[in-house]
Amino acid sequence: MRVLARDIAEAARGGLGGEIEIAGWVHRIRDMGGVNFVILRDRSGLAQLVLDEKPDLALESVVRVRGIPALNEKAPGGAEIRVNSLEVLSRAAADLPFQVNGDVSKTGLEAILDNRTLSLRNPKIRSIFKVQATIIEAFSAYLRSEDFTEIKTSKLVNSATEGGAGLFEVEYFDKKLCLAQSPQAYKQTMVAAGLERVFEVAPAYRAEKHDTPRHLNEYVSLDVEMGFIESELDLIELEKGLLAYIFKQVNEKNGEDLAAWNAAVPDAEAVAASPVVSYEEALQIANGEVSHNEGKNKAARLFDVNPEAERLICEWSAREKGSELVFINEFPRRYRPFYTCPKGASSTMSFDALFRGLEITTGGRRQENYDALAEALPKFGLKVENMQNFLAIFKYGCPPHGGFAIGCERLTQKILGLANVKEASLFPRDRKRIEP
Amino acid sequence: MRVLARDIAEAARGGLGGEIEIAGWVHRIRDMGGVNFVILRDRSGLAQLVLDEKPDLALESVVRVRGIPALNEKAPGGAEIRVNSLEVLSRAAADLPFQVNGDVSKTGLEAILDNRTLSLRNPKIRSIFKVQATIIEAFSAYLRSEDFTEIKTSKLVNSATEGGAGLFEVEYFDKKLCLAQSPQAYKQTMVAAGLERVFEVAPAYRAEKHDTPRHLNEYVSLDVEMGFIESELDLIELEKGLLAYIFKQVNEKNGEDLAAWNAAVPDAEAVAASPVVSYEEALQIANGEVSHNEGKNKAARLFDVNPEAERLICEWSAREKGSELVFINEFPRRYRPFYTCPKGASSTMSFDALFRGLEITTGGRRQENYDALAEALPKFGLKVENMQNFLAIFKYGCPPHGGFAIGCERLTQKILGLANVKEASLFPRDRKRIEP
Repeated sequence: MRVLARDIAEAARGGLGGEIEIAGWVHRIRDMGGVNFVILRDRSGLAQLVLDEKPDLALESVVRVRGIPALNEKAPGGAEIRVNSLEVLSRAAADLPFQVNGDVSKTGLEAILDNRTLSLRNPKIRSIFKVQATIIEAFSAYLRSEDFTEIKTSKLVNSATEGGAGLFEVEYFDKKLCLAQSPQAYKQTMVAAGLERVFEVAPAYRAEKHDTPRHLNEYVSLDVEMGFIESELDLIELEKGLLAYIFKQVNEKNGEDLAAWNAAVPDAEAVAASPVVSYEEALQIANGEVSHNEGKNKAARLFDVNPEAERLICEWSAREKGSELVFINEFPRRYRPFYTCPKGASSTMSFDALFRGLEITTGGRRQENYDALAEALPKFGLKVENMQNFLAIFKYGCPPHGGFAIGCERLTQKILGLANVKEASLFPRDRKRIEP
Repeated sequence: MRVLARDIAEAARGGLGGEIEIAGWVHRIRDMGGVNFVILRDRSGLAQLVLDEKPDLALESVVRVRGIPALNEKAPGGAEIRVNSLEVLSRAAADLPFQVNGDVSKTGLEAILDNRTLSLRNPKIRSIFKVQATIIEAFSAYLRSEDFTEIKTSKLVNSATEGGAGLFEVEYFDKKLCLAQSPQAYKQTMVAAGLERVFEVAPAYRAEKHDTPRHLNEYVSLDVEMGFIESELDLIELEKGLLAYIFKQVNEKNGEDLAAWNAAVPDAEAVAASPVVSYEEALQIANGEVSHNEGKNKAARLFDVNPEAERLICEWSAREKGSELVFINEFPRRYRPFYTCPKGASSTMSFDALFRGLEITTGGRRQENYDALAEALPKFGLKVENMQNFLAIFKYGCPPHGGFAIGCERLTQKILGLANVKEASLFPRDRKRIEP
């Protein structure tokens, strides 16, 4: 019966001098003159093995050992195993192209991604994906507790409906389809179909040629849609509760992973204190920050809420409101898609959420009125005849509704303070990178 | 404050004569001569509204009403609302092309899928996806409780690696990629990377031209991979525990949905009793069933475990073993991919799971030995130079491991007894169907 690294101390305390079995990867080998230490890595952590002879093994080989557990406060976890027998399950080649047991803080992103099958073995890099797993689990659990139903929708969509720009084309038998940018229309269908509250965790695709630290061409979209809302403010309330729960779960389950990145998550009080500012106010705040940072005489210079403004607004919020999370609502009509619900003549019931300087969410109340939608389409360069399936959602009764999406990798990035969002994708795709 | 349909009786019992608010879709209107009943549908069920005047509304319109709750044992849920005011939130067009409140048992699949945005409103059809949501939730919860980590991997893969047959091509900037048939290699990477136990819920793609009641070109794959196993028998044990848990959860959470389809799930005892038979035994059993059904004089006629044999083997198991679930292991080498771990000269450590006559799972222990893999590739028509990223997983230490995948729609189909797997996909894709 195999024991995990994290349980050796308990085995040493509770054992009756009997042998235990442990298995994992050879993380490090130390020859201390007569005594040999092997640090073994398994899914639970590190374990120290004590051997009489130096094992003839390359690092990263997989072994199974049997031995006697013993307390040793100098060993990781406060215990070690005095090895009686060692079996090699898988021998690693000696030419390791990536140092798994090293400090990766100075390693370049390209080296990490080129050697993905090895870099993911590094405990600090692996911890990114333990946090990500908690984010997905907590996202789903919170929404289920609020009576949301999980859905899985098609990622192969008709290009005419989606507009065409920024889409990857798929050869689908004798037709051309596209990879969905978002499950937007399908989420709306499911609200109108009477589930009322739905969520989806699925890949989304953007064929944009950007190569920035905040963009991925394939990402995991955490999508939410909810019926019977009044405005985007209901969605902001929902997202506050959702993020507070995700942060709490990450804090409880990923203490070691946060520590590895010297990171912390906001507490519930800070999330509750997150300000909601209109787009116009946000622009003023950002320009105020420019003056704040560069002196009163410098003229304000930001004309829209661009990435630079997003950073400044989060700085303002952290300083003035005690929250690293900010919601910007009432985006101008020109910045939002045709299906966004208007608010007055030129504004919309839409919002972004910014966290630690980065937009992690876009959302809003949708237009559910069939006639208003049909009227809006041509103004946005779309043809009513191409949108019949979309319009059908609203033709036969659709409640007021709205939703949002959280970029899973962006949230992971910002929780841990990663420099580049690609670090938060197991196998990221960008314009050049298609492997592994 | 809105009350849901399922809570009206409680409101009637606990209320102090005060008004409540309810909102939803107009499911049915009945003029009973002087008294008018409207059956309202919300996400929790149906509610009876009593009105003095017949409302001027098409079915499926969305309304918000205020009124006094009152117990009435003839009403759905044992209570009704005497309406004081009714507000139309969204008026439905009168030309409803699909009868939402009807009996769909005679409705053809094409009509259901052509009118997907309406057919999903039918409570019986919607219940399919409530069951599916429970399957996904229970799958994830069980595996987390067994220390598995959820992963999300790229669906855009290099076609050379995947082989080419049965793949959809994607125009990825100036390159051609393919939609992944399975996260197989990525799951293996994550086992080798030290997570040891991983699962993924994600779309998978097969560009096969089949049009059968058991095939989808895009489906949700429930994927599992696990390190430090001895053989496929460890995986079968895991899947038995997993399916028993899924069935239990569906039974607890989806009683009404099961009842709508007159369906039941196997209990834990039945799952535990599921037989494991080798491929050769399975073939004998299937041929024995042919004789059993058609008389001893009829010669056995099945030469491989085809869909017909799968049905016969499940009949045998239900009758002889008390389980509708059967595991077939030791598939011949010629039926399994190159990465399958051999067992003797011509057999493999692989298995299928059959449930109610349908294959719902394929899995097995993988070959983790680098040299053995490199040697096997050419025999399967694959080139070592195209497989460097795959081989890298095994070059630097990989434990013995294996995994399996459950087709989410197939499991949903078989739990509810649906005639066609497409009924279990919200927005199915086949050779002809690309919308909605």
